[in-house]
Amino acid sequence: TEPAAVLETVEDLGRQGFEAIVLPVEMDGIVDLDRIEDAVDDGTLIVSAMAVNNEIGVIQPLAKVAAICHRHGVLFHTDATQAPARIEVDVDAWGVDLLSISSHKIYGPKGVGALYVADDALLQPISTGGGQERGLRSGTVPTALVCGFGEAADLALEEWPTDAKRMAGLATKLRGGIDAMQAEVHHFGSREERAPGTLSFGFRGVSGDKLVTMVEDEIAISTGSACSSETAAVSHVLAALGRSRAVTSTGVRVGLGRFTTEQDIEAALKAFGRAVDTAA
Amino acid sequence: TEPAAVLETVEDLGRQGFEAIVLPVEMDGIVDLDRIEDAVDDGTLIVSAMAVNNEIGVIQPLAKVAAICHRHGVLFHTDATQAPARIEVDVDAWGVDLLSISSHKIYGPKGVGALYVADDALLQPISTGGGQERGLRSGTVPTALVCGFGEAADLALEEWPTDAKRMAGLATKLRGGIDAMQAEVHHFGSREERAPGTLSFGFRGVSGDKLVTMVEDEIAISTGSACSSETAAVSHVLAALGRSRAVTSTGVRVGLGRFTTEQDIEAALKAFGRAVDTAA
Repeated sequence: TEPAAVLETVEDLGRQGFEAIVLPVEMDGIVDLDRIEDAVDDGTLIVSAMAVNNEIGVIQPLAKVAAICHRHGVLFHTDATQAPARIEVDVDAWGVDLLSISSHKIYGPKGVGALYVADDALLQPISTGGGQERGLRSGTVPTALVCGFGEAADLALEEWPTDAKRMAGLATKLRGGIDAMQAEVHHFGSREERAPGTLSFGFRGVSGDKLVTMVEDEIAISTGSACSSETAAVSHVLAALGRSRAVTSTGVRVGLGRFTTEQDIEAALKAFGRAVDTAA
Repeated sequence: TEPAAVLETVEDLGRQGFEAIVLPVEMDGIVDLDRIEDAVDDGTLIVSAMAVNNEIGVIQPLAKVAAICHRHGVLFHTDATQAPARIEVDVDAWGVDLLSISSHKIYGPKGVGALYVADDALLQPISTGGGQERGLRSGTVPTALVCGFGEAADLALEEWPTDAKRMAGLATKLRGGIDAMQAEVHHFGSREERAPGTLSFGFRGVSGDKLVTMVEDEIAISTGSACSSETAAVSHVLAALGRSRAVTSTGVRVGLGRFTTEQDIEAALKAFGRAVDTAA
C-alpha cells in the first residue's frame, strides 16, 4: 500500500546500502508503538513519522515515538507540514531532532520550507556550492519566499489557537451534518487524535471519485493527496488503514482552513446531501 | 587555487567513488583545449565548463569543448548563469547536453533556476517525493518565482542584443577611462572573448580591498564573487590565471547591467581617479 514516492525512497536507500522499513499503522491511522519498539534497535539511524497526516488529519504520538528512538540512540524526524496553524508545534515537548515544515501550508508562498535541526552536526549537505545556510544548503536564497514564509509563520503563531478552535467547530458541524444524512458514513482516521481542518469520510456504496464529481463545482474536495502530481487509483493513506477496498474507495478529503466560513459548511452539506440523494 | 566549494565537490565525488579533475585555464582565463583533450577519455562521464565567468567575464569556447567531449561519448554541461541577457545562448550551436541558468542573473526573482536537459534519460533525481517536474525534482513548485523567471527570460530574449550593445559601449568607455589614468593597470581575462558587463582590473600597487573601500560608497564593486557567502582572501578566479600574487591581489570586479547609465560610468571613473590620486 505504499505510494510510489515511498517505494522510490526505500529503493534509493537500498541502493545506497541502507535498509528502510515502512511500518503499518492501526485502523485509526495511528502508528503502532509496539511495532516501532520492535523495529528499532541500536543500529537504526533514524525514524521518521508525520506529525499530522495530510489526508486523514490524525496526530501521531510523537513524544512517545521520540522516547523509543532516544532510548536506542536513534534520531527522530517528523514531517510537521500539516501541524503549524492547526496544532501547537513544540520541538521540545515532541522530542524531535529534525522537523520539516512547508510555507504554503501556513498561507505563505509556495516553494519554500524549513528544517528544524536540533544540532547542526547531524547533517551533511547533499549538494555543495556557495556555502549558503551555514554550508547545509548551497544556492542563492529566495529572499521573497523566505520573507513571506517568516511573515506567515508569525501570523500562524499568533492566530493558530483561534483558527484551530474555529476550524474544529466547523469540522464538528460538517461531521454532524454528514452523520445525520440518510446514508451510511465511513469515517477515516482517529476521531480523538486529529488536527482540526481535515475530514476524511465516504458514503457507503458511493465511490470517492463519483462523489467528488458530484460536488466539486461547489466545494474544494479530492480523493487523494494534492502533493502527488500523478493521481493514484486509491489513496495509499486510506489503503494503509487495513479496511476493505469497498470502504476505502468511498473516501474523500475535505480541508477546512483559516478562510472557511459557516456558509461554506452549509453549502458543503447541501452539496453532499444532494449527492447522497442522487446516488441513493 | 580552487575555491572551497570546488574542493568540497571534488572530495564529495571522491567519496562516491568518482575521480574529479580540475583543469587549469590559460593566463587569459580561457580553458586550454589541449589539456581537455588529454584529460578526457572514453571512461569520462561528464565535463563541465562555465559559459561566461562571473568574475572576469571571459567566454569559454563551448562548441570546441563539446566537440572534444562528444568525440569520446562524454556528456558536456555548462553553467551559463552569466550568459543570458549578455550573449546569445544557443544550446545547439554550443552542443551542450546540460545547461544551467539562474533567474536572478537575468533580473528575475532570486532562488529559482533552470536546467536544460537534451535528453531526460540522462538524469536521475537526487531526491524523491511528490514526483513534480517529471520526477526529476520533487517538491511543491515555487509558482511565483517560476512565473517571474519566465517573464524575465522573455524580456532577456527580447532585449539582450540592445542591452549587450549598450553594456559593451559603457564597458569600453570605462576601460578607456581607466587606461588613461596615471597608473599602471592590470586587466584580467581575455580582451576579445568576453561578455559585455563584467570588468576585472586593478591598479598596480593598490590592493583590491583598499580600492573597494575607497570607491564603494559611490559604486557597486567587489573583489570576489558575490556567490560565496564567505569571502576568500584572494579570488580563486584571479589566482587561477597564473599571475603573481602582487598582481592578482589588486583585482576588483565591476559589473554593468541593464540599468547602468552613462552617468554611472562617469561617476565610477571619477571615483577611480580620486582613488588612484590618493593611493599614489
